[in-house]
Amino acid sequence: MILTVTLNTALDITHRVRDLRPHTTHRVTEVTERPGGKGLNVARVLAALGHEVTVTGFVGGATGRSLQEQLARIPGVVDALVPIGGSTRRTIAVVDATGDTTQLNEPGPLIAPAEWLAFQEAYEHLLRSASAVALCGSLPPGIPVGAYAILIRTARTLAVPVLLDTSGEPLRRGLAARPDIVKPSAEELAELTGSHEPSRATRDARRRGAQSVVASLGPDGLLAHTPEGHWRATPPHHFHGNPTGAGDSAVAGLLSALVQHLPWPTRLTHAVALSAATVVTPAAGEFDHEVYEQLLGQVAVTGEVTAA
Amino acid sequence: MILTVTLNTALDITHRVRDLRPHTTHRVTEVTERPGGKGLNVARVLAALGHEVTVTGFVGGATGRSLQEQLARIPGVVDALVPIGGSTRRTIAVVDATGDTTQLNEPGPLIAPAEWLAFQEAYEHLLRSASAVALCGSLPPGIPVGAYAILIRTARTLAVPVLLDTSGEPLRRGLAARPDIVKPSAEELAELTGSHEPSRATRDARRRGAQSVVASLGPDGLLAHTPEGHWRATPPHHFHGNPTGAGDSAVAGLLSALVQHLPWPTRLTHAVALSAATVVTPAAGEFDHEVYEQLLGQVAVTGEVTAA
Repeated sequence: MILTVTLNTALDITHRVRDLRPHTTHRVTEVTERPGGKGLNVARVLAALGHEVTVTGFVGGATGRSLQEQLARIPGVVDALVPIGGSTRRTIAVVDATGDTTQLNEPGPLIAPAEWLAFQEAYEHLLRSASAVALCGSLPPGIPVGAYAILIRTARTLAVPVLLDTSGEPLRRGLAARPDIVKPSAEELAELTGSHEPSRATRDARRRGAQSVVASLGPDGLLAHTPEGHWRATPPHHFHGNPTGAGDSAVAGLLSALVQHLPWPTRLTHAVALSAATVVTPAAGEFDHEVYEQLLGQVAVTGEVTAA
Repeated sequence: MILTVTLNTALDITHRVRDLRPHTTHRVTEVTERPGGKGLNVARVLAALGHEVTVTGFVGGATGRSLQEQLARIPGVVDALVPIGGSTRRTIAVVDATGDTTQLNEPGPLIAPAEWLAFQEAYEHLLRSASAVALCGSLPPGIPVGAYAILIRTARTLAVPVLLDTSGEPLRRGLAARPDIVKPSAEELAELTGSHEPSRATRDARRRGAQSVVASLGPDGLLAHTPEGHWRATPPHHFHGNPTGAGDSAVAGLLSALVQHLPWPTRLTHAVALSAATVVTPAAGEFDHEVYEQLLGQVAVTGEVTAA
């Protein structure tokens, strides 16, 4: 199976209102809820592609119970979340008639040292039956900022390919543990390296420890620097819609192709096609299968193989 | 015991943010949750005054379980909420650094006809051990707009004094069933009667069926027209703070004094004192006991007894 780790899971709530005006009262016309956090989105897409997927991370409190109930209804995703005393956070997206979103993100629960240790034990156990692992998103309070470096080293010790998708200091620290793949956005790369030139920043990120760096260029596709070569994968045109979850679908595409031992250009094609097929659907963690299949033949990959 | 009915219970969530700006992302710095709905606030105040209180209404889903867990931690309040298939709604109050609130109110769950019947049975059973009952707040979808009239007739048949605190059409329909007390705000009275002159509107509301009408004048106190006379009760000065729940505390004061068979001027004194003592605390359903005790000797009641 493929393992995804979401240390800072969330219950994502969407509220539709007519017009959000500060300091007034609003009747919410529609409420939707879904399990949230980048690793859960990645898992949902992998399961829809036919992979066996297990999700881990932390879960607790009444919001955590809701999240787990909803997770149980997603076919193909196995719940191996680790219970905590605190309560899983909520995120609230208030969508008004303009279609624009006002986001309220609750802080994650404080993780106790014993809970972090329990997680590491569970993680190591799960890795023993994993063909790949993705470490996704932010860290909740109480988790050391170098947490991803620890989790990467465990995966490398057990020879499980590891993909890291995070930002800021957790990304910087994680890189030093030499993950197989990191998938930053252009902004995250610029923050990490100081360079706003994606190709230079991608190479720089590799020098900092990642074996392969796949930079997301938003609607322009992906840029990859790997030991086998460097490539740029571009969709046939820009897709309009909701970009939330597009990066998570790219991660799912990279992992899916990785466990099938597909070559890098094909991996990038899958990632770009899934990403665009997610933009055209309303919710993160979902994609339009028809658009995905079509795009597999339409993504342009240019680049070159590293001389042996 | 005193019974309070909250057909449209809610889990009240408060989010603190620095500055709410539409179409941006906000980190919530503090999250608080409490069982909400006017009847639950009334019950909390009554319990703090030493009364035995039972709450009923509808509860369901994951949010309902949270609400019940939190309700169980309030000493002196007995939970007799009736389970439903739908999910209890949330309200979200986003408080920014200005102290002002942006309110998001989810719609209530759709109540099935069988659930409404189950409630009416439970309600009639509970009334048999009640010394008074308060019917509070809005109606969830699926409940007939004349619901309060039905509940008032049941209480009157069983000779249990009944107070109605609602607005709009449910208030209009409820009045026709001759509740013992209604407690509208000046705005609700104006909407009902078309008169913005509180004394005239209060008399008019009595003619529509209520035996006693206690109109809330906000920081200026209460105005009451009853079979025994009419009075105005005024706090010694305006109190600054959070007016949420002040009306619910007034209801609690009226009920507390009613079951103690205190005369109307004393009932109004209790209601005004509790109401002001609630404004000075941050949360609905709580009051400052010291302010309350002090104010009992400071509320001015003027008016006259009806000639026999």
